[in-house]
Amino acid sequence: MDDVKVIEIKKSIFEDNDRDADELRAELKRKGVYLLNLMSSPGSGKTTTLIQTINKIKGRIRVAVMEADIDGDVDAVKIKDATGIPSIQLHTGGMCHLDAEMTRQGLDNMPMDDVDLVILENVGNLVCPAEFDTGAVRNAMILSVPEGHDKPLKYPLMFSICDVVVINKIDVLPYFDFDMKRCEEYVHMRNPHAKIIPICARTGEGVDALADWLIEEVNNWKNQ
Amino acid sequence: MDDVKVIEIKKSIFEDNDRDADELRAELKRKGVYLLNLMSSPGSGKTTTLIQTINKIKGRIRVAVMEADIDGDVDAVKIKDATGIPSIQLHTGGMCHLDAEMTRQGLDNMPMDDVDLVILENVGNLVCPAEFDTGAVRNAMILSVPEGHDKPLKYPLMFSICDVVVINKIDVLPYFDFDMKRCEEYVHMRNPHAKIIPICARTGEGVDALADWLIEEVNNWKNQ
Repeated sequence: MDDVKVIEIKKSIFEDNDRDADELRAELKRKGVYLLNLMSSPGSGKTTTLIQTINKIKGRIRVAVMEADIDGDVDAVKIKDATGIPSIQLHTGGMCHLDAEMTRQGLDNMPMDDVDLVILENVGNLVCPAEFDTGAVRNAMILSVPEGHDKPLKYPLMFSICDVVVINKIDVLPYFDFDMKRCEEYVHMRNPHAKIIPICARTGEGVDALADWLIEEVNNWKNQ
Repeated sequence: MDDVKVIEIKKSIFEDNDRDADELRAELKRKGVYLLNLMSSPGSGKTTTLIQTINKIKGRIRVAVMEADIDGDVDAVKIKDATGIPSIQLHTGGMCHLDAEMTRQGLDNMPMDDVDLVILENVGNLVCPAEFDTGAVRNAMILSVPEGHDKPLKYPLMFSICDVVVINKIDVLPYFDFDMKRCEEYVHMRNPHAKIIPICARTGEGVDALADWLIEEVNNWKNQ
């Protein structure tokens, strides 16, 4: 197992997170780096989804990952071992989310001249991360089949701010009372424009659609 | 579907949550009411577990439920319809946890003279609820098989403060890479005294052990 860099994130002292986030986005635009903020519940399969997706796109664009967690470096090591791309771990010191300034602390430790796309794996939590703009170009989230199709009803803000909702673990659909059609309805109730991508990260099913969306997004961002 | 009472919880103005929590516990002790704080990720099966457990114990002790959620009243209605016990919904107004004062606001709306056990279903979140003592006699949490056995490594505080870890959805063990033995090791790394109860809330498997533990707890609390 490779060692990975672990950054202890400091609590932000800035008051106006929305302004910080807009400034960070403008800076990323100048540098030609696309930042994706990926959120979900604990255990929805963020890391496995990332590994599969990165292995599909890393020959086409230059990717790096920041793994935010309260503790440990399991995920950053996993990503680095499985994909070979730059991957660092951000420790939030118990905090339940990242804001724009905290995200910037992570980006300061990334090889920004050599990447097209940075994916931020946010803390596993459907509540707090939704409240803070990280400065990302897009927000994406993963909802896994075992969590249930009713989650957009219970975590409205998270679903309303996400441009993409990846529905993971579709291989276990036969074993759960998960109604895909109803889930799509509930997602669109929160955000009519949200793109829904059903996948199985374990087998790789559907991951091409996610990879293609990401490549297109990054290219549009760089060429706009 | 029955209507349920929905309480809009106000943000606490008190500074010292630990003191408030101790005071609330002392008050519950005087009243002979046991409060259980139940936590988990979104979609781990808290509500289904509650319904199954309550239906096993409601003939032996008097139970009521407070369902905390950011929005909606789906869970409180479900509990009331499926068990017939008093059930109210607490709206946290976007907040990611309950503290002792917020819990007290809920209890003020419960039939405290007519219950032995109040179960608080906390907001679905493995981070923030762990940081605030609600005044409960015990903390319990549900980890579901699809979430993975590594969660105690990633959410250390949550697992260290829980007296009971219910492992739900054991019926789907064949379809997930979930190592029960390793999970138990990780849980006990965080809290050597944590009781682990594997169940399948959907089929009812293992729920007797959870029900028996609760009954014993409540009786001990009342008779101590």
